[in-house]
Amino acid sequence: MKIGLLGAGRIGRIHGLNVAARGDAELVAVTDAMPEAAASLAAATGAKVASTEAILADPAIDAVLICTPTDTHADLIEQAVAAGKAVFCEKPVDLDAARIRRCLATVEKSGKPLMIGFNRRFDPNFAALEKRLRSGEAGAIEIVTVISRDPAPPPVEYVRRSGGLFRDMMIHDFDMARFLLAEEPVEVFALGSALVDKAIGEAGDVDTAAVVMKTASGKIAQISNSRRATYGYDQRIEVHGSQGMLRAGNIHETTVEIATGQGFRADPVQNFFLERYAAAYRAELDAFIAACHGKAAPSPTGLDGLKAQILADAATESAQTGKPVRVDLGAN
Amino acid sequence: MKIGLLGAGRIGRIHGLNVAARGDAELVAVTDAMPEAAASLAAATGAKVASTEAILADPAIDAVLICTPTDTHADLIEQAVAAGKAVFCEKPVDLDAARIRRCLATVEKSGKPLMIGFNRRFDPNFAALEKRLRSGEAGAIEIVTVISRDPAPPPVEYVRRSGGLFRDMMIHDFDMARFLLAEEPVEVFALGSALVDKAIGEAGDVDTAAVVMKTASGKIAQISNSRRATYGYDQRIEVHGSQGMLRAGNIHETTVEIATGQGFRADPVQNFFLERYAAAYRAELDAFIAACHGKAAPSPTGLDGLKAQILADAATESAQTGKPVRVDLGAN
Amino acid sequence: MKIGLLGAGRIGRIHGLNVAARGDAELVAVTDAMPEAAASLAAATGAKVASTEAILADPAIDAVLICTPTDTHADLIEQAVAAGKAVFCEKPVDLDAARIRRCLATVEKSGKPLMIGFNRRFDPNFAALEKRLRSGEAGAIEIVTVISRDPAPPPVEYVRRSGGLFRDMMIHDFDMARFLLAEEPVEVFALGSALVDKAIGEAGDVDTAAVVMKTASGKIAQISNSRRATYGYDQRIEVHGSQGMLRAGNIHETTVEIATGQGFRADPVQNFFLERYAAAYRAELDAFIAACHGKAAPSPTGLDGLKAQILADAATESAQTGKPVRVDLGAN
Amino acid sequence: MKIGLLGAGRIGRIHGLNVAARGDAELVAVTDAMPEAAASLAAATGAKVASTEAILADPAIDAVLICTPTDTHADLIEQAVAAGKAVFCEKPVDLDAARIRRCLATVEKSGKPLMIGFNRRFDPNFAALEKRLRSGEAGAIEIVTVISRDPAPPPVEYVRRSGGLFRDMMIHDFDMARFLLAEEPVEVFALGSALVDKAIGEAGDVDTAAVVMKTASGKIAQISNSRRATYGYDQRIEVHGSQGMLRAGNIHETTVEIATGQGFRADPVQNFFLERYAAAYRAELDAFIAACHGKAAPSPTGLDGLKAQILADAATESAQTGKPVRVDLGAN
Repeated sequence: MKIGLLGAGRIGRIHGLNVAARGDAELVAVTDAMPEAAASLAAATGAKVASTEAILADPAIDAVLICTPTDTHADLIEQAVAAGKAVFCEKPVDLDAARIRRCLATVEKSGKPLMIGFNRRFDPNFAALEKRLRSGEAGAIEIVTVISRDPAPPPVEYVRRSGGLFRDMMIHDFDMARFLLAEEPVEVFALGSALVDKAIGEAGDVDTAAVVMKTASGKIAQISNSRRATYGYDQRIEVHGSQGMLRAGNIHETTVEIATGQGFRADPVQNFFLERYAAAYRAELDAFIAACHGKAAPSPTGLDGLKAQILADAATESAQTGKPVRVDLGAN
Repeated sequence: MKIGLLGAGRIGRIHGLNVAARGDAELVAVTDAMPEAAASLAAATGAKVASTEAILADPAIDAVLICTPTDTHADLIEQAVAAGKAVFCEKPVDLDAARIRRCLATVEKSGKPLMIGFNRRFDPNFAALEKRLRSGEAGAIEIVTVISRDPAPPPVEYVRRSGGLFRDMMIHDFDMARFLLAEEPVEVFALGSALVDKAIGEAGDVDTAAVVMKTASGKIAQISNSRRATYGYDQRIEVHGSQGMLRAGNIHETTVEIATGQGFRADPVQNFFLERYAAAYRAELDAFIAACHGKAAPSPTGLDGLKAQILADAATESAQTGKPVRVDLGAN
Repeated sequence: MKIGLLGAGRIGRIHGLNVAARGDAELVAVTDAMPEAAASLAAATGAKVASTEAILADPAIDAVLICTPTDTHADLIEQAVAAGKAVFCEKPVDLDAARIRRCLATVEKSGKPLMIGFNRRFDPNFAALEKRLRSGEAGAIEIVTVISRDPAPPPVEYVRRSGGLFRDMMIHDFDMARFLLAEEPVEVFALGSALVDKAIGEAGDVDTAAVVMKTASGKIAQISNSRRATYGYDQRIEVHGSQGMLRAGNIHETTVEIATGQGFRADPVQNFFLERYAAAYRAELDAFIAACHGKAAPSPTGLDGLKAQILADAATESAQTGKPVRVDLGAN
Repeated sequence: MKIGLLGAGRIGRIHGLNVAARGDAELVAVTDAMPEAAASLAAATGAKVASTEAILADPAIDAVLICTPTDTHADLIEQAVAAGKAVFCEKPVDLDAARIRRCLATVEKSGKPLMIGFNRRFDPNFAALEKRLRSGEAGAIEIVTVISRDPAPPPVEYVRRSGGLFRDMMIHDFDMARFLLAEEPVEVFALGSALVDKAIGEAGDVDTAAVVMKTASGKIAQISNSRRATYGYDQRIEVHGSQGMLRAGNIHETTVEIATGQGFRADPVQNFFLERYAAAYRAELDAFIAACHGKAAPSPTGLDGLKAQILADAATESAQTGKPVRVDLGAN
């Protein structure tokens, strides 16, 4: 199986190296707006540097990975499926739900597989938790809690173009909440503040936020986000059920612990998302390649991408208006 | 110092025994609507059984502990301070905020100390956390999270008279959130469901709930409650701050752990609130006696009781109307 | 039941207060070489101060607790059983095994119950572990590990009179190993060093030691001791069995944890043995009083005291000669 | 840098794949007594299959990795250095210390680098602990504890050819103890039993063992081994020092935890040594390649291999004779 990579930035490079390390797929071509980024990854993997057009036009290429800036995603997805490629696209499809809908309609007509990069579903810990949840180990789901805190806030310039915390950061947690709840939320209420960096507030965004959601049957989800956690990249999930509570915690840098008169001190948690989710990125690629081979339906789908975006839009509106927002995501 | 006890039920008995075990205070009289309850505690402590009237009329008695049903609290507080007693009263002062206000006005005029039984502030773990928070160890407070889950739901008849989950159960968590935030919430949004016991829903109450609150400066508090946790009495607090994160976890029944092919299994957490908070009840009594001796102002105060009640009322309204509710608790 | 206390030092005071707090026993008399110690405890408990002779001669006193210096234990035990008292005696009975044997023969002839104060058997965590071990939860016992480290070394003057680390400190761990193994060791090998305090080495003792023991069927026990642990009073046990591994860990001062860029820091473990084993002392007294009432055989027995002493003697000899020492403790 | 692999069994395959995944080294040839093993690895890596002779004779090959059966190690090391290759050899060099000495003399004359595969030194957790120990974080070292328990015993036929538990299994722990102590042991005492599998005892070996060792300055090391742990591959180290205690614990399969009425259950620890030490094997190869490039001295050295073997021999003798054995490993 031959794969082309559109975008060789931080996340594109990870996916490119992961393809190159596999025995069952080959990275044949890479493109990037920054020629050095493409050249560097090409050198490390044996792929050639090519233009987007050339990659999409190459009949030998079976699939593309879209890791370009967000505002190009929908167009590239449409072009790629038109060119007969299977597509893996980093989240989000677009910041505008209407644009996502049009894009997904095009994908559907093409019959080509599209998978969206909600990498956290593939974290071995979160995936194991979800599997055990589905097996009924915790009974009926009642409260889903997602805690997600970044080590440090992004630059304000990034924040300005990001669509805001709910669309840029919490979108992962909306997807995780849906993944765990297995029932669609119908109501979203959000609170947000700029406590970490005043400039974020001045740019019209928040850096600290909490959301509560409810499903039609009354299940509750709570999400909290902060753009800054001094102790590392804090990523926790917890599901309270009728038969028990399932949770998955953080990953510390090492298992080493020191005990002194000041107490027992373990390491900070892994700080960098590419390290924290390294195994998830590999498993995500496994799933995409399996979907390309027709061994499994692509998942998460474009529709999953759309639904997370709708929840992020609702949270953004709720935080701005101070009112809860009802959403209709259809059946799960 | 001589103490009279009004109410010798489950919690009254704990306080009565704790007084009896002290060297600096004496339990001299006890009353209860159930004569056997009063007699049993009197036998165990050397106190005499007396009527409420006799206790309040006895000039040798310095202070009373009010552990009677909620609907008698406000009247008894007023009678006790009128009789010149220092008063410790179990939460809540009343289910009606207006009645609480009148009662507190009476107390204020009397000049007698009144302390409200928010026992969790006195848990050694939570008290240590709060002290470290105040010392600045976590920096500026940004997100306060309180998780509180009971082992098993109360009977529906109890639920019917309870004022509802927000006033009966979450009131402790509202107080804890205020204790930790050190700034008053101005907005409350609540979601609730009856997932544990349908009969609770039919009685008009919820058994599973989540609340988010915000202070004027943007600090956020999240509270979640369930009336049933299979693994024990789940009591956790966590504060995310600009310099770090402080949390206090559950207390397991023992430190024993078994490792087998099924994994590493620790004990459930302590199941019974009287065991879980045994040390807190003793420390609470220390604080009341210190306040009676004028060594410290009584805390939590009647006003703390009122403010927690206002938050509980706001959450009840929010859950019923589906809208956030603004509150004005004055300065902290 | 009326109890007299011989010795009102640190540990005697704990036992005296524990008796006084019970409903089913009364501390009636206390004696100590230091009159103020006796007077202070008498004031706190309502007991009277009396001489040892008066206590032993008082027919109203059913039982005595011996908490005097070690070199008086054997004599006092003999006098007390001769006076018809049930006896609880702090460990050890004597530093000389032959003297212990003579004392136990006297006790046996008297028919009076004697219980030895190996308090750790009564720690709720260790007791729960032992009970689960006996229920077969870990299968057949293979390796017992006991880790015991004091917060700080005693003064050298104390060390000189102590009988040495193996008899003074590790004797508790020998008892614990026997309690957990449920089969008698037949071989003891010990290594010791003075690493904490040179003066301890100059006094002919060690402050850091490791022992390995083997039973006839091949079960292995490992014990390690240090006279100094910067992080608190380190008390851990672990049993590796054919079906699993059971362990009981340390007790931290609180459950509070702080996470920062330096990592996740929990409290030191409880530092003071009287605090760490407070619940054990109460449960130990329960067991003694039950034994006095004939509801259970006294346990640990004088014979348990003798056997622990024999193991301590063997370890002392092994550390001095550099050779393993065989012991014959008879059937368990 | 071009590398040849001698031996494509379980561990050889790991090293071969790790070489193939690197950008700075190439696996060019592989040999194995089982042609299919060599062919399979060659196919996966792009290496060619060749004979040992051809690999050693190929001047383009810079280094060889020896992963053949133990009894071929010393001969192959000698042939490889004679052929001018840098050598990485799996532990042990030989089961006979005299043979190891001759082999190391040959290596020394050749001037070629030799590194021995004590992989655990390269585990990121253990390596971090050792580094912090060397930085003085725990103060002076007093007690080193190594716990090492395999998930399941090997077949008796393997045991018969293995040299016995102390040479086959505990040799890793002797190396780890030396690595942590940073001072050579001078005395070894060992106890062993066959508790897991009677057939192991009938074959003259043990499956459960404890060793204590002492250095000239009095530092103590304790090691315990079992050939069977129901809960996974148990690998723990702990160092008690004058300023604190450093430890590194097990790695659970996931971070998922379930809480129910039975308690809080975490996953078993990783069961398979190739998974548990996957990161260690990669870091070990980093170190070997750095040594080949002269960027660091090879470590652990052949001398480290010899010293671990001498300790294993001493423990074997001690367990058989029942006496402690003195060893002279020279300066550290």
